[in-house]
This record gives sequence, C-alpha cells and structure tokens, in this order.
Amino acid sequence: MYLRIMEIHPWSIRSTKLEKEHKRLQESLTSLGNGYMGMRGNFEETYSGDSHLGTYIGGVWFPDKTRVGWWKNGYPKYFGKAINALNYSKVAIYVDGQEVDLGKHTPTDFVLELDMHTGVLHRQFTLFGVQFRISKFLSVAQKELALIRWDITATDGKTHKVRIDAVIDADVKNEDANYEEKFWQVLARDVTADRGSIATQTVANPFGVDQFIVNAEQTFAGNFTATGHDSSDWRVTNRFEAEVGAAPKTFEKRVIITTSRDYDGLAAVQKAGRDLSAKISGQNHADLLAAHEAGWKQRWDIADVVISSNDEAQQGIRFNLFQLFATYYGEDARLNIGPKGFTGEKYGGATYWDTEAYAVPLYLALAEPNVTRNLLKYRHNQLPQAQHNARQQGLAGALYPMVTFTGVECHNEWEITFEEIHRNGAIPYAIYNYTNYTGDDSYLAKEGLEVLVEVSRFWADRVHYSKRHGKYMIHGVTGPNEYENNINNNWYTNTLAAWVLQYTLDALQKHPRPDLNVSDAERGKWQDIIANMYYPEDKEQGIFVQHDGFLDKDIRPVSALSPDDLPLNQKWSWDKILRSPFIKQADVLQGIYFFGDRYTLDEKRRNFDYYEPMTVHESSLSPSIHAILAAELGKEAKAVEMYQRTARLDLDNYNNDTEDGLHITSMTGSWLAIVQGFAQMKTWGGTLSFAPFLPSDWTGYTFHINYRGRLIKIEVDGKNVTLRLLKGDALPLKLYGEALTLKDSHSAPLQKNG
Amino acid sequence: MYLRIMEIHPWSIRSTKLEKEHKRLQESLTSLGNGYMGMRGNFEETYSGDSHLGTYIGGVWFPDKTRVGWWKNGYPKYFGKAINALNYSKVAIYVDGQEVDLGKHTPTDFVLELDMHTGVLHRQFTLFGVQFRISKFLSVAQKELALIRWDITATDGKTHKVRIDAVIDADVKNEDANYEEKFWQVLARDVTADRGSIATQTVANPFGVDQFIVNAEQTFAGNFTATGHDSSDWRVTNRFEAEVGAAPKTFEKRVIITTSRDYDGLAAVQKAGRDLSAKISGQNHADLLAAHEAGWKQRWDIADVVISSNDEAQQGIRFNLFQLFATYYGEDARLNIGPKGFTGEKYGGATYWDTEAYAVPLYLALAEPNVTRNLLKYRHNQLPQAQHNARQQGLAGALYPMVTFTGVECHNEWEITFEEIHRNGAIPYAIYNYTNYTGDDSYLAKEGLEVLVEVSRFWADRVHYSKRHGKYMIHGVTGPNEYENNINNNWYTNTLAAWVLQYTLDALQKHPRPDLNVSDAERGKWQDIIANMYYPEDKEQGIFVQHDGFLDKDIRPVSALSPDDLPLNQKWSWDKILRSPFIKQADVLQGIYFFGDRYTLDEKRRNFDYYEPMTVHESSLSPSIHAILAAELGKEAKAVEMYQRTARLDLDNYNNDTEDGLHITSMTGSWLAIVQGFAQMKTWGGTLSFAPFLPSDWTGYTFHINYRGRLIKIEVDGKNVTLRLLKGDALPLKLYGEALTLKDSHSAPLQKNG
Repeated sequence: MYLRIMEIHPWSIRSTKLEKEHKRLQESLTSLGNGYMGMRGNFEETYSGDSHLGTYIGGVWFPDKTRVGWWKNGYPKYFGKAINALNYSKVAIYVDGQEVDLGKHTPTDFVLELDMHTGVLHRQFTLFGVQFRISKFLSVAQKELALIRWDITATDGKTHKVRIDAVIDADVKNEDANYEEKFWQVLARDVTADRGSIATQTVANPFGVDQFIVNAEQTFAGNFTATGHDSSDWRVTNRFEAEVGAAPKTFEKRVIITTSRDYDGLAAVQKAGRDLSAKISGQNHADLLAAHEAGWKQRWDIADVVISSNDEAQQGIRFNLFQLFATYYGEDARLNIGPKGFTGEKYGGATYWDTEAYAVPLYLALAEPNVTRNLLKYRHNQLPQAQHNARQQGLAGALYPMVTFTGVECHNEWEITFEEIHRNGAIPYAIYNYTNYTGDDSYLAKEGLEVLVEVSRFWADRVHYSKRHGKYMIHGVTGPNEYENNINNNWYTNTLAAWVLQYTLDALQKHPRPDLNVSDAERGKWQDIIANMYYPEDKEQGIFVQHDGFLDKDIRPVSALSPDDLPLNQKWSWDKILRSPFIKQADVLQGIYFFGDRYTLDEKRRNFDYYEPMTVHESSLSPSIHAILAAELGKEAKAVEMYQRTARLDLDNYNNDTEDGLHITSMTGSWLAIVQGFAQMKTWGGTLSFAPFLPSDWTGYTFHINYRGRLIKIEVDGKNVTLRLLKGDALPLKLYGEALTLKDSHSAPLQKNG
Repeated sequence: MYLRIMEIHPWSIRSTKLEKEHKRLQESLTSLGNGYMGMRGNFEETYSGDSHLGTYIGGVWFPDKTRVGWWKNGYPKYFGKAINALNYSKVAIYVDGQEVDLGKHTPTDFVLELDMHTGVLHRQFTLFGVQFRISKFLSVAQKELALIRWDITATDGKTHKVRIDAVIDADVKNEDANYEEKFWQVLARDVTADRGSIATQTVANPFGVDQFIVNAEQTFAGNFTATGHDSSDWRVTNRFEAEVGAAPKTFEKRVIITTSRDYDGLAAVQKAGRDLSAKISGQNHADLLAAHEAGWKQRWDIADVVISSNDEAQQGIRFNLFQLFATYYGEDARLNIGPKGFTGEKYGGATYWDTEAYAVPLYLALAEPNVTRNLLKYRHNQLPQAQHNARQQGLAGALYPMVTFTGVECHNEWEITFEEIHRNGAIPYAIYNYTNYTGDDSYLAKEGLEVLVEVSRFWADRVHYSKRHGKYMIHGVTGPNEYENNINNNWYTNTLAAWVLQYTLDALQKHPRPDLNVSDAERGKWQDIIANMYYPEDKEQGIFVQHDGFLDKDIRPVSALSPDDLPLNQKWSWDKILRSPFIKQADVLQGIYFFGDRYTLDEKRRNFDYYEPMTVHESSLSPSIHAILAAELGKEAKAVEMYQRTARLDLDNYNNDTEDGLHITSMTGSWLAIVQGFAQMKTWGGTLSFAPFLPSDWTGYTFHINYRGRLIKIEVDGKNVTLRLLKGDALPLKLYGEALTLKDSHSAPLQKNG
C-alpha cells in the first residue's frame, strides 16, 4: 500500500478531507462513466489548486504526431489518443460576489462520496455561510445525459445572493500532447436565456483520420433565475441567481453530449442535442435519477461479489467492477476497453491486448454473450488494418496492434511495437475462450476463422527455421514480461504461436472455409511448424524456460533485493532491469494459465515455484494470474496476498501512479482472483467446475455467473459451498472434481484446498 | 554510388552546375573548416531555394531537452548539440536595384570549386551583366578569421551600380532542435560606418550547462564605398556601393569570431574581436591568404597520399584528409571530432567512440604525438563525468558516454545509451595504441592508469557470473553491429572487457599506483574474470560467434537479398533487421583488427569468410576494417572494393545522406585502407612493419608517416617498394616479414600479396 486517502465502506468511496496535495489521486478515484462518456472527479466550480481536468467521450480520439528520439523504419506516424473533450460540467459560483474556490478558501463540512451502488458522485461543503450539496451522474439510462444538481442552503441564519455561471468550455488541452498542440476547434456556439451549446471538432490531421464533432447542449432546472448569457471564442455561459436562505434552493445543469459518431454532420449532431434536451425537459430530477439507478441495480444484481466480514476486500472488488462497467458494458461494438478508461490520458485510452486476456473472461461470466461477441467483432472489423500492420513489418497475414483505435498500430517503441507480438495470440485465444465458454461456435465459423487464418499466416511467416537445431524459432520478441526485450524463443510466444496454428487447422476442419484459400501446402507448412516448434525447457529442473538466455542470468529471488531497489522501474536503470532475472508480470505462468488443461499439477507447481519468487508484479495485470495458479496449487496465503494487490491497487495507490488515472483493464483481476482463483472456476473442455476455498479472514463470499443460458449463484461460507441455479436448464458440472447435475441447488462441505 | 555531382580532379571539388535539386548535398561537399570553426558551403548572398544554413564553432553547444516517446529510467536529461551559430558570411547584393538570388535567377558562367590544396572555396557566376568571383577561407593561420572576397566586373560593356549589404545575422535555428526552440539570444549590437558586431549568447538552460558567448566583428576592405549602416533585433548591416564597369571592383568582408571559450565575459570577448580586427587591418588580402595557404601546405607535406593514375581514388583520399583536418588538427585539447564535424547538425557534432577507434591511428601517423595525446586527455578530463554515467546505471567505476560534450552521456535510446558499452573498451584501446605507437608510456603511467582503473572497475561490476556455465558473462549489450540490440555475450565486447582488465593489471605492474587503491582482492577478482570470461565460439566452423543467439539465425549472405532490400535501414522494418543475420559494420572482425597479433591468419580467414558475406556496410565505419583484413588475407579485390566504398562515401553520396553533412569520423577509413590495408602497415609488439601491394588499376602510391621521432616516406610503384627515412634516427622495421634497419632508404621488389 502506497497511499490510502478514501475511507473503507462496502458501497462507497468516501472522504471528509479535501486532499489538496493529492487532488489528482482523489479525482481519479471519484471518476464517473457510463460507457458512452466519462470524467475524472473534477470539481465543477473554479478550483485554482493543482488538478487534472479530464472529460472523455468513448471513441473520440485524435492522431497525435509521433514523437521519438530516433526514428526507426516502420514506426507509426501517429499515436492515437483519447482526448480531453470540452468541459461541460463547469460552473463559477459566487456568494455575495465572492467566488467559491476551494483552492483558495477552506470549507467546513466537506464530504466527497462516490456511491457505487447508484453511480452517483456526491459532494458537500460549507463556505461563506452557505452549504452546497452537489450530486452528479452520467446516466446509464440516457447515455448522452450528464446531470449535476446543487442544493444550496444558508447555514448562518442570513440570506445570501448566490450566482451560478454555467459554462461549457471548449478551451481544453491534453496534458500528454506530444507537441503541446490543441486538438479541438469550435464549429458553432449558440446561447439564449435558458440554454447554451457549443459544437467542437477535432482539428484537421495529415494522417487521413476522420475528424470528430462533439456538441454539448446545456439546459437547466430548479429555482434559480436566469440573469444573462454570453459567449466568447471558446465558451458559452448562462448566468443564474437566487437569494438563498434557510430553505434550500436547487439548481440543475443538464448536459446532452452528441457526436458525429452517432449523427451525420454538424446540423444533425446539434439537432440531436436539442431534441434530447427537449425530451428530458419534461422529466424531473427524481425520475431521471431513478432510471439511472435502476440501470446500475440491474448490473449489480448479476455482477456483485459479496464478501462477508471484510470491508476492505469488499470495497476493492466493488470499486473495480464499478469502474470497469463505467468504462464498458458492451453496448457499442465500435468501442473497446482502454487501460485508463475515462479516468486519465495516459496510454491514450486505446485498445490493448488486456481486453482479450483479462477482460473477456469477466464479461463472459457477468454479461450477455453478445457483449463479448462485440469485443471480438471489434477485432474482426479491424482485420484489414491488422493486415496493414503485418505488411509494415514485411510480413504476411495480420498483426493486431499493441495500441490502437482503428486497428492501425499506434505504439512507437520498437521493442513493443515490432516485438511484443504475443498480442497476436491473445486475440485468437479470446475467440477460443468465447466459443468454449458459451458453446456457441457460430462466431468461430464465420468471423473467427477469418481472423484466425490471417493471424496464422502471420505466425507462419514470422517464424524462421534454424538449420542448426532443425527447429522453428521465433527470434526478437518481447514477451508479457516487458522487463526483457528482444529475446529469442520466448516460451509463451512460441507456445501461443503453435497453438494458434493448431486451433486454426482444427477450426478449418470443423468449419470448412474454401473462401479463405488455405491451400494444402499452407496447411502442410503450418503442421510442420507445429510439429517442429522449438520450446526452451530445462528437463533437469522440470521447467519451461522463459527464453533462450534466461538460465544464464544471475538467478535470484526478489527477496534478495533491498526494499530500496523496489519498484525496479523507478529505482533501476533500464538495462539493469533487462539483464536481471526479475519478472514484471506472469510470462511462462500466463501460458500455463491460458492452457491450464494441458499441464499437470506437478508441472504447474515446478514452474510456479521457479518463477513466482522472481516476479515483482510491477504490472497491474500480474497478480491475478499468480492468484489463480496459487489457488489451484493450494497456496492459499499466496493467492490471498495476490488478491489484495489486485483488489485495492488504485484505492491504496499501490503503484504510486493512480493520479494519472485508474488501471481499468486490470480491474478484472480481483474478480478473476476470486472466481477463477478462490472458487477455482474452470471451463476446461467445455465443462464448468468449481473447487472453492475460503480465505482465512473472510467468513464467506457470494457471486453469480452466466453460463450457457444459466444464471448460477455460488455461495461459500465457513462450512459449505452452495450452488444455486437461478435461471436456465439443469447443468452438468463438477464440484471438487465430483460430477453432478445442478438443478435447483447443491451444497457440499467446504474443502481445504491443496 | 548513389549520386555524384562534383567533377573528378586530383586537388579540387568542382562543378559548373548550380545544383538546385541537390543544394544541400553541394553545400555539404563544399564545407570549410579550420578546427576552430567551420561552415557548410552556403551561398553568402540571398538564396531563396532550399538550403541548409550551417555555421558552427568548435566546442560551442547547447543542451537540448531530451525528446523521447517513452521515458526509461536512467535516460539523460538533454542531448548536447553543436549548434548553428550566427550567420556571419551573409550579404545581400543588388545590381541596379535588383537583388542577386540564384534561387530565382539563372546565372551563366557558374563555377563552384573547393581548392583542397589551399583550403579556399571559389565561386563564380554572371548575372544581370555582372560577373562575380568569390573566394572564401577560414584561416588556419589566424583561427578567428573568416575572409570572403568578391571580385566584380561588368561583362556587358555597361556600368552597373552594385550594392552590397554585409550582414551579421543572429536569427538562426537548428533544424534538429527537439522542440523547435531557438538556442541563441543577442547580448549586444554595435555598428558604425566601417564595422559592425553582434555578441550572442546561448539561452539559459535548466541543466547547469555553461552558456557560451560568441561575438562576430566584421570589417571591410576593397574599393566599395560605405553608404550606411543599421541594426535591428537580430542583425547588424553595413551597406556598400560601387559603380562597376570592365575594371574589377573588389569587396572584402573580414569577420573575427571570438568566444567565451577563450575570453572571460562579454567585454573581453568583444575586445578580443576588435583587437584582432585591428591587427589584420594592416594586412592585405594576399598576405592573409598566403599565411593560410602556408598552413595547409605544411599539413599536406606530411599527410598527402599521392595515388598515380587514378584521379577518382586520389580525389577521394584528399577530400577525406582535407575535411578531417578542417575539423580537427589537434590544436585544442578541449575539442574532439564530431561525426559531422562542422558540416551539419545531425548526431549533434559531439564526441563518439569513432575518435578512439578510427581517428587516433591516423593522427598518430600524420601529426605530432601531442595531437593524439590531446585526444586522450580529453577523455581523462572527463573521468568524473564518466564515473557519473556509471553511477546512473547503478554500476561502479567509469562509463564513457556514447555521445557527449562534457563527458556526461547525452544519448537517449536505451539499446545504445545503456547497452552499447563496448565504447568503454575503445577508450583504453586508444591509450594502448598511443603508448605502443609512440613508445611513450608517460601518459599511460599517469592519466592513462587513472582512466584504466576506473574503466576496469566498471567492467568488473558489469559482468555477472553464470552459475550454470561457471563463466562470467556480459548480458544485454549492443555490439559495434548496431543491427542487433540487447544481445548476450557479444564476442567483441567480452573480448575487449577482458583485455581492458588485463591491460590495466599489466600497466599497474609496470607503473605501480598505490594512490588508485586497487586492492589485492580487486586484482584477484579481475584475474578471475579474465580467466573465466565466456567467449561464444563455434569450434566446428572455427569461428568466434558474434553473440549467443547468432548461429540460430536464418544464416544467409547479402547476395541472397534482392537489390530492392538495400539499404536495409531504409527498406526493412527494424525488427526484421534485428533478427536477420545481416551485419551493419565490423563486429567480430573489429576485434580481430584491434588484436591482430593475437590471431593466426587461419583464424582471421575463417572469421572473415564467415562474416564478410553477411555484412552490409551500412555504417560508414565498416568498409575500412574489412579492407585492412582483406588486404592482410590477400583478398586484394575485396580490399579495393572496400577502399572505394570508404574513399568516395560522401563524394558519391553512397549512403544517400550526405546532404545532412559529411561523415567526418569515418573519413580516416580511406587512409586506414591504404596505409594499414594496401601497405599493410602494422605496429604489433612495438615493431613497425609493411607488406604493400598495389591495386591493379593504380600505377603507384606514396604516403608519409611519423613514427617515434622519424618521418618516413613510403613509395609503392609497379615494381618496387621504397622506404625513405626523411627525418630521425635509423629504425629497425620489417618489410614483407624481413627485418631491416632503415637508414636513408631501402627498396625491395613489390610482392604479390596473399
């Protein structure tokens, strides 16, 4: 734990302290989102202290010209970035002419609380004799709607004149712009007594990337009086005033965000904004809020994981699920899950392999199959761009990108861009995962095979034949452990590449696709590669070797380091990290996790025991995989330790970087650790199975999963495991290795694992 | 050959064509320098076409804030750049009110000619009925002086009013500035009827790097009349006019450049400029030119290599020597040899290992020992900064930088900055080279050992012990072949590291230095590393292996590639280059060259035959080493082919990048190819030896060398080799393996090599 600034509550993220020193961290932790758009927990009124303003709209991005020290042939021309959009929450508030600015003035009575159950951010403070209670939500019932409400009361027995300037401000920048350029221009401004709007457009770019139009339309409700309006180059303002005494006065700012992603051209985007504003103008706050809350309730009914008697753990898992669903709930097949979601700029908010490797298993269990299918379709839609990426490297087939919005590679560090190609195994793996979990092979047969064949063509071209060894090898890669670069024969990558070829051949067998023109010669070549792939192994130690040179390293456990050495990525020079044996995240173990039914428990144990002590978990993606394997191997304490690292990663700011935004894609980790780890849920060979244990300081836990048309509730307490079939037909499954058919419910005594 | 735009002449670089399409290339090829300062061959008068303005002053640089895509821990904060200084050559010329601009108007009678024998750049053209003859030199007799003279004649029988505005313009930028910032500010301007000056200073920087003051003072001679002067923010101008008819009118612009490197503070720098201007005001053009020409004659008397009956080869070697000496002639121990000298911005004009590996052997032979000693002292002066660099990587001792002005590392690509550490062997090797060549071990005993011990401490800390092999290894390096990165056990690097330790131990034995505190334990550790260093070898093929993974590659010769694939660095994605077997520059062969007396001819032949066919020579440093080894192995055709690639690299623009500037540090390559290659000069074991052959399309060649107080002339013709002792005592040496003592002269029949 690096820093915990929010209180422990099962359902809320709360503080009574205005954290001026940690404002950015507090803003990250109080981010809101509804899948369509999102924002950091910025204060709406003026705040003159340090703050990181962030308002994002799903799928609205800009190609920022690549910045590198030394150009390498093949580098992409731009890095796509989810950009900070116009600030539509903004207000300026004056009490008797004095501006409210918590950067300058110290309030009393301060409360900040994110209610995760309802998806509403509450704030309260008293200043200049007036108490402000603010609530804000981005509606999951009406995705275009952001609603902010102020309830204002005088607390000093006097009457105060309160003025609120409601602003839409398009004068925003990305802090991470490569050349400090502004990404927006204003197309239109329109303000009248009771409404205002600005339409913005991303500036022109030389890369042929479409420009986006974003329109914000603000309307108002409550009992303040409109007193004026104006507009300047980048802003529109509606001014309101009220005399505030002991009886609360209310002000509502309702903003509708529409974009050219949904409407064609400026006029249509603007009209949609006006129409939607008109539509909600008849609804009161309670109605709009109720619809929003109902949406979150529906999500929680399936997704919630209830942990008994451990509020820290409980808060952690809920925070992760809340922020994950705030980023993506599968409504829009054009979107994907960016590493920071709507909570920050870093990593560009684009698509990484995290989605396929870490998010898909959760969405399979907690959402309808269509949500995952949309994630798969996203990649299928980008197949032409993946083919382009392969061509950029002089290779056949398709290479899915490390970072992208359109499918075209954006990343520009050669050891990642060109070499971290194992991502091209994660995409096929997700197809397998979907097909195996849902039992639905219609996606595989059609879109899936189109992806698989092209990815296989890439791998078949990317391997080379070592005459000396008579084996196919893959040189010059970076594995999941990014603390080694440009290595040869990464066991994980080689394993995944051969698996892709085999899976593709098997799928072609089952679902013939003459239209894909896979010749017999090509099949033969793939079979030859599968049969003669080189896998680095150490027979003596009985382990798979991370890559060719690994065993020559100065092998030491993390425990041999001084605490001053950690985290390595902040303390050590990059070269020292690279030649050390320390592992950023699961690598061989990631492969063993993916193909858990191919390896014996002994093989798993030997590899876990070899690699775990060298793993520093400096990727947020690492602990969950270790938790799952540790649980399977009966290493319960290790599994719990790993769960703790993943569950409260942001809440306790473990990596000291949450101020930049939340680690959205690794938020599935805590759920995976509980469901696939503690409860040992597996779907190997198309059979659902469980083998739960209970962490020693929990008294129980409960969760639901969707599985092949069923809804199943899993309850674990100190004595029993109970499976309840809440929906769907009877299901054959396994509990602690014992086959049974689940009808209504089934209980068994809790077993000690391992 | 990519593009040849200048004519073949033994002593000049000449063209009668204004190369508007290749203006930058022509500017690079007509660069001037006098070691103190230099400039690209920019036209003095207005030229509105594409051009790359470049005026540089030795040792005047700026720390440009690092620009990288992704920050790695340990990266330097800035990249030091030799910066474009104020443009003091500038004029604007008007004929009857029309401005002379060869970008707009087409002249007749155009000649551009760099006279390498005298170091004068001549230009001639006729426009608007007036002929201009221009000569320019940077005096090697008075280093601060740049002198430009115009001889102007009407050629159309009329009289024309010619106006010349002589300008000093401080409004200059570096094209390669990371953030498009300007590096200069103006401190003072001063202009009167007959003179003008500007004092500039590099802008403040946040890195604690000293700011430089540069002052340019212009005075005039000839028979133009001063008609006015003015100054603006960035400029001073003196205006002159003359009526020009059939009789030539002359205008001279004399500029004195003084800097805070030599004078302390603005006032002193300005005063020095005025004093020097006053000093030369009494001298006429002929005198000033004669002193300059005498300086170049003296250089050529020793350095010239005369090649009979091959003007292409002759021009090549002279061009290289001319540009090399224009960059560095050893007068200033604070300076070093930047890869582009004074001819361009790229690579920052700073110090690389090129100096020690490629330049030292030439300066040892062609200049007084003190010149080389100054190059060695440059590194000794920077020992504290080299210690800082090692500390940045968490290592003991001293690590000399890849790129530097002050000794602090400037480079910012991890695979180079942190990993191309073989540079830390080249610096000790140059100490050995100096000591062995000159027979003077006074430098070794004092400054040399201080460097050696600290470099040894670095290597002893940088190796690690592989328990599996019971050997010391060096993981994570980039060898001289930069087409492989982050490799393990580069044979060259391991060889050099062990050699440094041994050389240091030997030197300590001979010259005890208790003040350096090398304990017995430390010596023991070094000895253990030497005894147990791991060297990748292939006993079966009898070769040293470039690094651990090399033999697993898809081994193919360059001849298996299509011409479309070359040059690889422009045609292939970086990853494809990295995993290919193709070699940018001598790597194993560089080691065999350095330690030529340790390997048998058979070992050399096997390694040459293995690696040469895979070498693409896409570094300008590569062909010379291959030429030398080919010559030793009797592969005369290959040696000549390699000579041609190095001798006319810039004149024929082989790498298609000479427009950015000349490849100064590789210019020694053609001399090395002739002297150490064709003539097989060796100094192994302190004995000078020769074994010359004559390339088949040459009829002879002649060169001089300094060696241990002697001046020796070597003449090779179709029949004989003649050695003449021009200065110094009789010298025992070997010719074709036969020992003899050279007194006055000695002739032997030319032998067929191999």
